[in-house]
Amino acid sequence: MTGPLVGIDLGGTSIRAAVATGASGHGATVHRDTPAADGPEAVLDACAEAAREAGGGTPLVGAAIGIPGPLDAATGVVNATPHLRGWEGVNARAMLSERLDCPVAIQNDASLAGYAEWSRGVGRGSSTFVFITVSTGIGGALVMDGALQHGATGTAGEVGHVPAATGGARCGQGHPGCLEGIASGTAMARRAQEAIRAGVATSLSSVPADAIDAVEIERAAQAGDALANEIFRDAGRALGRALGGLINLLNPEIISIGGGLINSGDLLFTPLHAGVREIAFAAPLATCRITKVELGTDAGLVGAVAWAVKEFGQV
Amino acid sequence: MTGPLVGIDLGGTSIRAAVATGASGHGATVHRDTPAADGPEAVLDACAEAAREAGGGTPLVGAAIGIPGPLDAATGVVNATPHLRGWEGVNARAMLSERLDCPVAIQNDASLAGYAEWSRGVGRGSSTFVFITVSTGIGGALVMDGALQHGATGTAGEVGHVPAATGGARCGQGHPGCLEGIASGTAMARRAQEAIRAGVATSLSSVPADAIDAVEIERAAQAGDALANEIFRDAGRALGRALGGLINLLNPEIISIGGGLINSGDLLFTPLHAGVREIAFAAPLATCRITKVELGTDAGLVGAVAWAVKEFGQV
Repeated sequence: MTGPLVGIDLGGTSIRAAVATGASGHGATVHRDTPAADGPEAVLDACAEAAREAGGGTPLVGAAIGIPGPLDAATGVVNATPHLRGWEGVNARAMLSERLDCPVAIQNDASLAGYAEWSRGVGRGSSTFVFITVSTGIGGALVMDGALQHGATGTAGEVGHVPAATGGARCGQGHPGCLEGIASGTAMARRAQEAIRAGVATSLSSVPADAIDAVEIERAAQAGDALANEIFRDAGRALGRALGGLINLLNPEIISIGGGLINSGDLLFTPLHAGVREIAFAAPLATCRITKVELGTDAGLVGAVAWAVKEFGQV
Repeated sequence: MTGPLVGIDLGGTSIRAAVATGASGHGATVHRDTPAADGPEAVLDACAEAAREAGGGTPLVGAAIGIPGPLDAATGVVNATPHLRGWEGVNARAMLSERLDCPVAIQNDASLAGYAEWSRGVGRGSSTFVFITVSTGIGGALVMDGALQHGATGTAGEVGHVPAATGGARCGQGHPGCLEGIASGTAMARRAQEAIRAGVATSLSSVPADAIDAVEIERAAQAGDALANEIFRDAGRALGRALGGLINLLNPEIISIGGGLINSGDLLFTPLHAGVREIAFAAPLATCRITKVELGTDAGLVGAVAWAVKEFGQV
């Protein structure tokens, strides 16, 4: 390596960057707020600033950035970013490469988090690996035959956007009966709000509607609230059934589950495992380990650093 | 090649075998009835006889066989064969290898049909390819990054066994709300029979209950029967939504659809395409070609021959 390789994790509210060190480490994390309202130019200015600082001011050899939305890694063009306005059709790779004066690779942030968990986390040594992250949305990544799967145009890995019901609640992309529309934190909160409006008796009525989130629903469920428990049961079961389908489809060695929702423990995982058993064939289920992630909220940044090394590091 | 390579397609009622010729052809097809009731030993005797005849009596260099059920290609052990009794735990590879005195590869029959469509059919030249076959059951195969996907223990590719509803009708494996339990020919027939028993007015009432199949339902639908049309609408939509999920998950270049049900044409494909659009992201949908298979009922045999060449042919 003749100069620094930097990974950047772009989120809806903050930007993190770090330089690769040794075989699989990274230096201190540089933070910036995401100037989301100012649009892609300003956000990529802030990303470049964080990356340059992470690299210690030395000219960079290469950088990889994780973007919160579907994109085409081959062309560098972002398709849509549900949590950042105005990015559709933007060539984030070209724009960041110009700012940093070095080659840049872009990937979906969940793909990079999955790549991190596979190469440096709970999936180490496996060749068929599924990563799913459940928070306000549901994202993920697939590793098949020892390689992160991109598909034909780089959008593969959307494990949150498979059918979970014949119709009904919509995901963030507007698709009825999609897993994300049932099992994400956003979907759970919306269901609680709708139930309250419909007059269902629940302790969540005392929480301001816009403050209801998965954490509040968990608190209510732990205290015995029937609606909150039902919401967790249905979300966990839908997640489990979707993972059961992935077991039949992909026959993975490991499925690793991350995101804020996993902090709910048995409330989520008991119905989740029951849901898996409803759908999965016995043989591939018996050899599949379903486990929590190892790297947690660092996964996105670790993955961006690892991807920069993979793409631009000297072998 | 120093001797013949043979492919064998084992079905619930008949066995077909053929020898590889040239780069991608095969010789005349040898047929045998499947002595299914006599168990695996007798069935594999018949397979071996057909293979030897296909090979012209010359000692074989290698053979590949497609088996109608999930199995572990690495160990050669069959997990279950819904349409052949008594095969669970049978090492079909070892038993056939002993009979033929040559190395044998075994694969799920739908995997081989998918391999045929990808390597010698409608999927030629693609690197990310989904094959789905819809008849009495629903099977399939996945090609990612230019390779047939086996998963950790060889059972990958079960595209018919993903969630399609929150529960309800069960697939052949007993899983509630599974795609196969809604959209297979068997599921469609069962739904018609149940509706008739429940007193729904339909022209299918005049058909003996055990003679109701997808062909009868299609005939009734074409003649304007409301129940038959509804059954096709729901099956086509569920298939389409499942394929939409695969588009989000795998971002394939081509999805090829085979099996008896595709003869129903628009009756199946109109709701299928609508179902795809309900779930699929716009970007990967725009670059995915959804098409009928090219090789039809020959795909299983062509795939077995191609697999024998791949596994045991000289490069």
